[in-house]
Amino acid sequence: MNPLHPNRKFQSHRINKRLEKLRKQLIKHNLDAVIIPSTDPHQSEYVAKHWKVREYFSGFTGSAGVLVLNQDEAALWTDSRYFLQFEDECKDYNIKLHKQSIPHAPEHVQWLCDTLGENAAIGLDFLQFSKAQIDYIWEISASKKIQLKNTPKLVDEIWTDRPALPSFPIEIQPLDYSGETTASKLLKVQNKTANAKADYYLFSSLDEIAWLFNIRSEDVDFTPLVTAYALVGLEKTLLFCDRDRFSSTAIAAFSKLNIEIVNYDLAIVELQKIDANKKIITDVSSLNYAVFNGVKSMFLFQNSIAKELKAIKNETEIKGAKSCMVKDGVALTKFFIWLENELARRAISEFEIGKKMESFRKQQDLYMGESFAAIVGYKGNGAIIHYTAAAENSAMVKNEDVLLIDSGAQYIDGTTDITRTVWLGGIPSNELKIAYTSVLKGYIALEQLQFPKGTVGMQIDAFARFHLWQQGLNYPHGTGHGIGSFGMVHEPAQGFASSMTTGYGSTEHLSNQLTTIEPGCYKKDFFGIRIENVVLSSIKEKTEFGEFLGFTPITLFPIDRQLIDKSLLTESETEWFNYYHKVVFEKLSPVLDNTEKKWLQRMCEEL
Amino acid sequence: MNPLHPNRKFQSHRINKRLEKLRKQLIKHNLDAVIIPSTDPHQSEYVAKHWKVREYFSGFTGSAGVLVLNQDEAALWTDSRYFLQFEDECKDYNIKLHKQSIPHAPEHVQWLCDTLGENAAIGLDFLQFSKAQIDYIWEISASKKIQLKNTPKLVDEIWTDRPALPSFPIEIQPLDYSGETTASKLLKVQNKTANAKADYYLFSSLDEIAWLFNIRSEDVDFTPLVTAYALVGLEKTLLFCDRDRFSSTAIAAFSKLNIEIVNYDLAIVELQKIDANKKIITDVSSLNYAVFNGVKSMFLFQNSIAKELKAIKNETEIKGAKSCMVKDGVALTKFFIWLENELARRAISEFEIGKKMESFRKQQDLYMGESFAAIVGYKGNGAIIHYTAAAENSAMVKNEDVLLIDSGAQYIDGTTDITRTVWLGGIPSNELKIAYTSVLKGYIALEQLQFPKGTVGMQIDAFARFHLWQQGLNYPHGTGHGIGSFGMVHEPAQGFASSMTTGYGSTEHLSNQLTTIEPGCYKKDFFGIRIENVVLSSIKEKTEFGEFLGFTPITLFPIDRQLIDKSLLTESETEWFNYYHKVVFEKLSPVLDNTEKKWLQRMCEEL
Repeated sequence: MNPLHPNRKFQSHRINKRLEKLRKQLIKHNLDAVIIPSTDPHQSEYVAKHWKVREYFSGFTGSAGVLVLNQDEAALWTDSRYFLQFEDECKDYNIKLHKQSIPHAPEHVQWLCDTLGENAAIGLDFLQFSKAQIDYIWEISASKKIQLKNTPKLVDEIWTDRPALPSFPIEIQPLDYSGETTASKLLKVQNKTANAKADYYLFSSLDEIAWLFNIRSEDVDFTPLVTAYALVGLEKTLLFCDRDRFSSTAIAAFSKLNIEIVNYDLAIVELQKIDANKKIITDVSSLNYAVFNGVKSMFLFQNSIAKELKAIKNETEIKGAKSCMVKDGVALTKFFIWLENELARRAISEFEIGKKMESFRKQQDLYMGESFAAIVGYKGNGAIIHYTAAAENSAMVKNEDVLLIDSGAQYIDGTTDITRTVWLGGIPSNELKIAYTSVLKGYIALEQLQFPKGTVGMQIDAFARFHLWQQGLNYPHGTGHGIGSFGMVHEPAQGFASSMTTGYGSTEHLSNQLTTIEPGCYKKDFFGIRIENVVLSSIKEKTEFGEFLGFTPITLFPIDRQLIDKSLLTESETEWFNYYHKVVFEKLSPVLDNTEKKWLQRMCEEL
Repeated sequence: MNPLHPNRKFQSHRINKRLEKLRKQLIKHNLDAVIIPSTDPHQSEYVAKHWKVREYFSGFTGSAGVLVLNQDEAALWTDSRYFLQFEDECKDYNIKLHKQSIPHAPEHVQWLCDTLGENAAIGLDFLQFSKAQIDYIWEISASKKIQLKNTPKLVDEIWTDRPALPSFPIEIQPLDYSGETTASKLLKVQNKTANAKADYYLFSSLDEIAWLFNIRSEDVDFTPLVTAYALVGLEKTLLFCDRDRFSSTAIAAFSKLNIEIVNYDLAIVELQKIDANKKIITDVSSLNYAVFNGVKSMFLFQNSIAKELKAIKNETEIKGAKSCMVKDGVALTKFFIWLENELARRAISEFEIGKKMESFRKQQDLYMGESFAAIVGYKGNGAIIHYTAAAENSAMVKNEDVLLIDSGAQYIDGTTDITRTVWLGGIPSNELKIAYTSVLKGYIALEQLQFPKGTVGMQIDAFARFHLWQQGLNYPHGTGHGIGSFGMVHEPAQGFASSMTTGYGSTEHLSNQLTTIEPGCYKKDFFGIRIENVVLSSIKEKTEFGEFLGFTPITLFPIDRQLIDKSLLTESETEWFNYYHKVVFEKLSPVLDNTEKKWLQRMCEEL
């Protein structure tokens, strides 16, 4: 649901007013510019409402994007996934889009430095910037002697009804679903700390903390995270998180593990009390600058051990993920049968389709909610990569043309993410069939690829693209991302991307990881195509040339065949398609009724 | 030719003696360690004899490798291309091999910092280190307060018969082969300098200087480079290179272009005279620290414009390259006919084979020499990736088993580099045929790939590997490199590699570039396989998704078919093979005699 659309005129007035107020604040605080990023003090991709500052000032709801404001210009940097969405959401405001050529690249910093004069002052909230980001800004701006000022109050003086920090109750993730106790996880962190001759390991990343302490809540939409920092010592651990959010049982259980729960707002103060001669290991990419700035102790920067351990799923987590895939497949079977029947009688809004799909997932065991705002994009709307159908006035879907549905769920035993693109009726164009078939071929190529240990995402991302490239086609997003266990739908570190700027491109794929493969193709105003499964990685072969890994799909739902140009498939691709559908039918049919089973059988026939 | 092999015992004694003397020097100069890299003051890959310091102290002749010595240990870091060669060359000396996991990664720096105590002193010759490298060492060693001392004399006191700097006559590369005047090239540099509001552009890279001034000499084995620095001003240019190496005509011609030739040894002194308020653009990766350290002016670090311009070949250079490919193809045809006939009668040493091949190239028009030490590797020797057959005692090749030949030439109109792997007789194993066919399939896959503008080498390197990966095979080197025009055989910037640590992985492919594609497969003690062509890049298609590029092979010589398992080739791969050989025959046959033509026809038959 997008609250900014209904009354565009009013919204436009409101945003421009906010920008005006922000400019006045700049003058009041002697600032030449302000940088407002999309993140929170934990460098989260999706953030609690309290931290949606960039959305408040720009109206832009995308998960990635940085707003920069000076007296002359308001400018927003985002990547190609969001260009169409920006146009749609922000066309009425005086905000200029700067297209990032590489996702997450800090291109606005160079622009700001080029634009500002010597000795200029930039305001920003140190909580929202990682140590690595501030270092980068300083490096770029040093030659102009630009000052960075910590201005956390700047926004509060305008945003008077800013939502409070989340305070939802915290649940303990049972061992039956986590597969590893907090004690065991903490021991690994403590060993790593001791081996590095350090005293503490500091965690700021919310999904790492949720994993480490086996805790879940609902601080962030779609993501069961808990707002917290954690300081793991060799004997004692401090979990900075509001005490009244825990049950007394949980507090007692943690106490037995020498985990003390300290209120969140005391984190910085407590961390500043640590002696200067102590050594703290932390991840430079998630540690925010406000914390870094105040602590006397020495930091050792390393890639987070929690991120690395968490990315490799244990047996319980894999079992849970596979169980979720059956539930998701069953829910989608019921949903698509409903959709087929209903479209035969009437047109249905994209919004209603999304809600109905959610209702089928809700019937499944251990369901906790959607894992992200479902994307239901009809025809040209499918080309808006992170499209969200508004509650009112979303497009009416009929029994013709193409519909893209990208959705997922949070179950206590796992997280899902699946995209299917379906043909609803009529005769598809050759252009569409070639694009769809090329996307499918790309999916198969990457999923079937065997690659040596040590391979990172950027080396193999193009295997999902080259069939498209060969046709003069492409897609403007990465090919896939890690996925959590009742955690974040976009989970670091591994994935597939065209550059090294994110972990998805630069991280080595390891055994027992869950990753999505999701190539697509988008033609503005006409269609969006994407096919996405979650795959499990494993060692496929050991030879004198080393270990070789590969993937097995665990998502269970038929891939629409109406848009396939069979003449473009090789024999082995057709074999793959038939085998995949054989597995889907075998795994889903036992839990379906007869009508559903028949429908699924039809969808899973041999090509 | 490798002068270190003949008398291993004596050589071993000699190297160990040199290392001993170097350790005494460390004590004398109060140093805890010394770093001896393989490069020269211009960060060249191949260097003049004067700069072969690392070879002098280690006996290791590979083009890449760093020697680190302290009182306890002599250690050499090199990459996987050279592991077998190191074993072979250095097994008798007290030098420990450290295997670099990523080629050219400065892993020795971390090792040194871990090994040395606080306040230790490292000696090195600032001339042999780029500004970027010294910055990196300082960054890594800062926490231990390690000092870096410039110790250029350290080596000279031991290496008393060190060869002088080169002083060969310099030739002007005629416009008929360069395709662009020095005046035109300088103007581009001056425009770039003026646009950046700078005063000078400083070049240190020898191949950039050779290109910019259209000059060639023979300072470096196999590479027609001139030892020089160049300072391009907005009105006047200084070329730091010994004046007596130029003809008076050349000096006069340069003078007309406001190019003054100043002796090489005056470069640093002259650069130090430039005012502190002047701005000099230069490439941080090639500028050596001795120059950087002494200059008062401000440096603006940019990627070298010469490197970028040079990588895109003009029409004349492309015409020249294609002409060289005919000459190379003809020479190789004559050579392989000779080899076939001769092997029927007798066994021939690898060394003799290399010399004979050279003699056929020498007969070609505008031939200037080999472009690198030819690799003639019989059976297991082919698995030593940069193998050089010694003059004495190299393996005797018979009319059986497998032979790898990687060779190339310098012609005034271009540079060549080609690898073929041929079966000489008997029945090849299935293992060999599968490996060979997979290498061929990989070559075809990358050469036939269409990819979008903006693609860098690391994104597509794996297309030459995945057929091997699928069989549990791989190769431990990059897939290809740029190649010069009567220039360096390994020319930056573009290429194909598995990481971003070199330009080959991180540089965007552009139209009109010449690059090699050379996948391989190596089984220690059994065989080496490599297939290599030079390809020309061009725009293949423009669509609404952007421009797409692709390659066309320009190397002209049949690919051995005896090792192909036809059942593993797809129809389109077989079509590619037949088309390539049709082109080879069409281009080479007009300049062959009847016997040669018949032989080539047999080699180019349809599969």
